[in-house]
Amino acid sequence: EGTVDYSQLTFDPGQNELIVGEAEWHCDEFTKGACFSRGKSEEDCQNYIRVLLVNGDRLFTCGTNAFTPICTNRTLTNLTEIHDQISGMARCPYNPVHNSTALITSSGELYAATAMDFSGRDPAIYRSLGGLPPLRTAQYNSKWLNEPNFVSSYDIGNFTYFFFRENAVEHDCGRTVFSRAARVCKNDIGGRFLLEDTWTTFMKARLNCSRPGEIPFSYNELQGTFFLPELELLYGIFTTNVNSMAASAVCAFNLSAITQVFSGPFKYQENSRSAWLPYTNPNPDFQCGTIDYGSYVNLTERNLQDAQKFILMHEVVQPVSPVPYFMEDNVRFSHVAVDVVQGKDMLFHIIYLATDYGTIKKVLSPLNRTMGSCLLDEIELLPPQERQPIRSLLILHSRSELFVGVRDQVIKIPLMRCNFHKSRDACVGARDPYCGWDLVLKKCTTLEESLSMSQWEQRITECPVRNVTVDGGFGPWSGWKPCSHSDGGSVGAWANDRRGSLSPSPGL
Amino acid sequence: EGTVDYSQLTFDPGQNELIVGEAEWHCDEFTKGACFSRGKSEEDCQNYIRVLLVNGDRLFTCGTNAFTPICTNRTLTNLTEIHDQISGMARCPYNPVHNSTALITSSGELYAATAMDFSGRDPAIYRSLGGLPPLRTAQYNSKWLNEPNFVSSYDIGNFTYFFFRENAVEHDCGRTVFSRAARVCKNDIGGRFLLEDTWTTFMKARLNCSRPGEIPFSYNELQGTFFLPELELLYGIFTTNVNSMAASAVCAFNLSAITQVFSGPFKYQENSRSAWLPYTNPNPDFQCGTIDYGSYVNLTERNLQDAQKFILMHEVVQPVSPVPYFMEDNVRFSHVAVDVVQGKDMLFHIIYLATDYGTIKKVLSPLNRTMGSCLLDEIELLPPQERQPIRSLLILHSRSELFVGVRDQVIKIPLMRCNFHKSRDACVGARDPYCGWDLVLKKCTTLEESLSMSQWEQRITECPVRNVTVDGGFGPWSGWKPCSHSDGGSVGAWANDRRGSLSPSPGL
Repeated sequence: EGTVDYSQLTFDPGQNELIVGEAEWHCDEFTKGACFSRGKSEEDCQNYIRVLLVNGDRLFTCGTNAFTPICTNRTLTNLTEIHDQISGMARCPYNPVHNSTALITSSGELYAATAMDFSGRDPAIYRSLGGLPPLRTAQYNSKWLNEPNFVSSYDIGNFTYFFFRENAVEHDCGRTVFSRAARVCKNDIGGRFLLEDTWTTFMKARLNCSRPGEIPFSYNELQGTFFLPELELLYGIFTTNVNSMAASAVCAFNLSAITQVFSGPFKYQENSRSAWLPYTNPNPDFQCGTIDYGSYVNLTERNLQDAQKFILMHEVVQPVSPVPYFMEDNVRFSHVAVDVVQGKDMLFHIIYLATDYGTIKKVLSPLNRTMGSCLLDEIELLPPQERQPIRSLLILHSRSELFVGVRDQVIKIPLMRCNFHKSRDACVGARDPYCGWDLVLKKCTTLEESLSMSQWEQRITECPVRNVTVDGGFGPWSGWKPCSHSDGGSVGAWANDRRGSLSPSPGL
Repeated sequence: EGTVDYSQLTFDPGQNELIVGEAEWHCDEFTKGACFSRGKSEEDCQNYIRVLLVNGDRLFTCGTNAFTPICTNRTLTNLTEIHDQISGMARCPYNPVHNSTALITSSGELYAATAMDFSGRDPAIYRSLGGLPPLRTAQYNSKWLNEPNFVSSYDIGNFTYFFFRENAVEHDCGRTVFSRAARVCKNDIGGRFLLEDTWTTFMKARLNCSRPGEIPFSYNELQGTFFLPELELLYGIFTTNVNSMAASAVCAFNLSAITQVFSGPFKYQENSRSAWLPYTNPNPDFQCGTIDYGSYVNLTERNLQDAQKFILMHEVVQPVSPVPYFMEDNVRFSHVAVDVVQGKDMLFHIIYLATDYGTIKKVLSPLNRTMGSCLLDEIELLPPQERQPIRSLLILHSRSELFVGVRDQVIKIPLMRCNFHKSRDACVGARDPYCGWDLVLKKCTTLEESLSMSQWEQRITECPVRNVTVDGGFGPWSGWKPCSHSDGGSVGAWANDRRGSLSPSPGL
């Protein structure tokens, strides 16, 4: 009752359950009072869940708890059962508006990137729990982190990767935000004297996503990412600054391109009177795991000096293609999810983009170098007068479902909606990789539903032509009306019937 | 017949004549042939007039002349009478697409800022003619001029000022264009050995026009200026880069703010491994005129070294108000003209802005710090389907007329059009400083037309409300139709009758 801000969604595959928040978990009155006394509002002094991670049979979760962050470990199958409660400091932001990201590795370490203090002036990438010593990024050092907004984190091979945007330090042409990929070795145990309790393997690089041209137009600010582990491919959505005109782009990066930049020269400023210049990487074949016992020990004094000095890579990580996969003006994308779909002839990537006005754009990733991406559909989640930003996006590949969190509800969208296309022309013309025309069944089906692939017609060679992709048998949209859940839940949902529109409607 | 590109307009006050081009002045066939043989097109290999300056009873004019620029001196009252013809090199661009600017001082020197060569790789600010030695900016030195696009030039006091945009050199965050004000002393005679034949007084500073915010949004590229000498106030229009989303802004700069920056520290990079750092100005009270004979002689070796080294000012010239006077997204302004209008209670500045789609926006400059500017009107010059960029804008204050050059015609717009407002509400509600309601005549008149200022009602305290500024007695616009000139000239013009619209129409 009264729950808001569905910004964290996670899935429990064991029970086939979406975990959208938790059992009731309020701040106590004393904590709330302390929060008020520090000048925060009633709205701020609540418990906003910011970490929600499945860890074996446990759920690890942290909340802002009225600017006094705490974390709990709960039984995944019974969320009211709390095993232990620890401080959320360095694991969860104090302020619900501060962005953060966290993950737990298979060996049980928690990596969190968040503001460490009440004011939010002390951001860090921090490791705790598990069996390895706690480590953080150097404190109050703008060359490590400069007013970052953390976006995402991934556990990949020997490294933990973090993606964020931050104020650029490497130039003096006015304040600009740059997007970054950073990484640390999971077996880093910190330095001795120098870099004590601090990462010795922290590096970061700029991510470039820009419209090419004599003077490229940069989408500087990373807002969301989606990683496809099998392809080692990272999709990122980038926007202009909030004070600039709204524009967004999607760029995709190969993990190998990121790795390559981390093996290249560093960018370093000797002192405040020097330019930022490239410096040869002292250890271009750097691997975390080559050290005894899997830990990054036996560092020489020189190693540590280098580790303290060389943080930023000189080269910029370039996306897979010089032109962004998708660009749109006058809109800000906030979240991205990608589905890899088996079509008749090949695999397709479908990119789902959450817009700042509460719709989901469904985009077909470019098929080759000559053909750009296609906007397949724009899914309206809410009645036009109730539009609001999207707070989370979770795709469930196994069930072809997309979960969308907004302020006060979670919406489920089935991704395969072939039966909306009533004619062969509409079905094939939609260019939707999920759908094809079954020549025997004489209807638009998914590949699974069709009787045989040889009788399943799909032609994805160009973008769909607007206005002709849907059978003309539909009428105009009906109004929206609230509907009740079959489980009698109190969270409202909306549905509308459609008798016709330019694009298929969501089935809510 | 067949004349195009009315990019240069000038007025001969003696004869009350607009000089829009010249007498017929073609390239000869030999020159054209040479132009073709260098790979240029028929269109490029014409004579495009790029300099058109009244100089006493002479008209000094230069044309690109099929990539072989030449200049002529003609009798102002008889343009076919040519006194002398000289090379246009360093006075006029070779290529008609290269921007240039030029002026002649009262003592007869020509100051031109233009590309000096066929390829356009050698830009310069060059002084020639008159009694002083020819001087230029240092050749192939990107710290002096870095791929500039020259916009305008003014002869002010002891200095000649140049306004342009160029690739920024003072940072390394990717290619960016910055806008500049530069100046030289008119009595500069160059250096000896060091800076021989080169300016010893050249300085430049960045002009800032940006939307404020945590990360300001910069309108980096100066497109046009208008200088009000009595107020020593420069209006500039700035846009985003052509590869970026279109957006434009108007900023106004006090000449004193520019002068102050030129008295402050320089920005200098010791070597390519150094940062750009501020250096104390060795001569903060710099005046051109304090030297013997009015010439800037007796420079020491040290003076010349400083002059060669210190080109760029550290401080940025800030506009009169931190927020631009006027901003608009999704449009690029190309030219600006300003009229100072005596209203009932005060003087008003009316800014005329040429848009990239061929209309003129009429904007009332902010009256005070709390009130912003008002868009008063948008004047359509051409039928919608014939929209094209505007190439020149010339305001004739004495006659309250605005001349607009487009590709193949010049359009005259009377600035006072009070009689379009038929009712008192419409007249006063238009908030047009040119107009007031005469309570005796019972009509909307200019201040001059009214019988007495005490009976002339004008209330400019807020912006006009759209849709209510014009008397509802009008019907919709009629179609456009060609009309013939009274002098039978072959250049076409267009007119349309209006029976009603949201804003007054141009009277062509």
